[in-house]
Amino acid sequence: MSAMADPERARRSRPERPGVRGGTGGRAPRRRASHSLEAVVAEAVALLDEAGEQALTFRALAARLGGGVGSIYWYVSGKDELVDRASDHVLASVLAATEGRTGSDDPVDDVRAVAVSLFDALVTRPWLGAYFLRDAGLQPNGLLLYERLGQQVMRLGMAPRPTFEAVSAVMGFVIGTAADLGRAPRADADADDRDAGLGEVVERWRGLDEAAFPFVHLVLEEFATHDDGEQFRAGLDLLLAGVRLRAARA
Amino acid sequence: MSAMADPERARRSRPERPGVRGGTGGRAPRRRASHSLEAVVAEAVALLDEAGEQALTFRALAARLGGGVGSIYWYVSGKDELVDRASDHVLASVLAATEGRTGSDDPVDDVRAVAVSLFDALVTRPWLGAYFLRDAGLQPNGLLLYERLGQQVMRLGMAPRPTFEAVSAVMGFVIGTAADLGRAPRADADADDRDAGLGEVVERWRGLDEAAFPFVHLVLEEFATHDDGEQFRAGLDLLLAGVRLRAARA
Repeated sequence: MSAMADPERARRSRPERPGVRGGTGGRAPRRRASHSLEAVVAEAVALLDEAGEQALTFRALAARLGGGVGSIYWYVSGKDELVDRASDHVLASVLAATEGRTGSDDPVDDVRAVAVSLFDALVTRPWLGAYFLRDAGLQPNGLLLYERLGQQVMRLGMAPRPTFEAVSAVMGFVIGTAADLGRAPRADADADDRDAGLGEVVERWRGLDEAAFPFVHLVLEEFATHDDGEQFRAGLDLLLAGVRLRAARA
Repeated sequence: MSAMADPERARRSRPERPGVRGGTGGRAPRRRASHSLEAVVAEAVALLDEAGEQALTFRALAARLGGGVGSIYWYVSGKDELVDRASDHVLASVLAATEGRTGSDDPVDDVRAVAVSLFDALVTRPWLGAYFLRDAGLQPNGLLLYERLGQQVMRLGMAPRPTFEAVSAVMGFVIGTAADLGRAPRADADADDRDAGLGEVVERWRGLDEAAFPFVHLVLEEFATHDDGEQFRAGLDLLLAGVRLRAARA
């Protein structure tokens, strides 16, 4: 899958140097007396969560950290590395959430548990899906999560190819569905619009010719009342039923 | 699914007015003597295909059309509407490609045919996935495609809810996988880097501890030689096997 196909750069060796960095005096109150790679990354995650990827600039981040832009460059080479590290920071918590949720009698149940945990993290963080395992060298937690999911599928005892295909399909479904749910609404829509908009869509669809749109009419009530999370889990279960069937035939 | 959940705006009534628009003289050679909604949208698709969504500005589009920015506003209200119409323009060809590929003895085969056609269009157009059915009012072809896919699933005779879930899962898998494959590479990577990068990733993964990363080692050769399109179809088949099983149990 593409998530693993992007080039990894050689890790630059950059010693972590604590201490007061940036700023030339007491002109502005500082939120921290010193930075650390951890603080820079945590603040980047907070900024991404609050305002999305467009808002993540070194200038904005420096302002939050109470220092200069140069102090961030001490820790990361640029925005690419910063976003990769921010992604991995979040994936650490997903990894922790799936700890102990594997090892049941049913490997497929364990695949489901890992997949749902990853989905839950991705769907609340629209910025994250695009970076998951983009650079595994900078995302050790992402790599561990991928390995954990893979190990559950391995327990089904299939050959390498169907094992790889099953893991890729599950990862693709999780990342893709979360990305689709998290994609930016129209510039002219806000949250209220979205709810009002769903009602409008339902009303418009109700007006479509039943002979030409029998499917739309069949699912109209389901569409009007659906829950995105439930729908993801239903789709995941269809996919996992296919995986189970494939394993039984192997 | 979210693709259908975004608000649709009331269609503005704006007569299509052909004729020479924009430009104040013969200062620059024009590519067209006049615009039409069709020409504006077709040129927007060309620009999106060549340079991606960031490149689609009214200024760039006007330059290609050989007129002024004002002439584009005659036809569309803004970038949102333009991208929705550009998406639907592409979807017309997907709709045509699936014409006659349904109605076989096996509804699941027909679902597969529609899904693969849609995937093929999406994967070559990274900009498209984010807008598919964002505004069904501006995307009549998208709505017809959704209906066509749904009608094949309907033939399985399931209740409305599992029918809706199956269609949503297939749509989510197609759109999500294509989006994942099409996501922007790192700013510092080009196509050659990507190929070189895959080799580098494989080498690095080969160096991981086998006891800690048994899954990575098991699938390493598959990963090194995988084809994204084949992998998509393998995943789709797992999902469709699950759908078939669900229908048989209904």
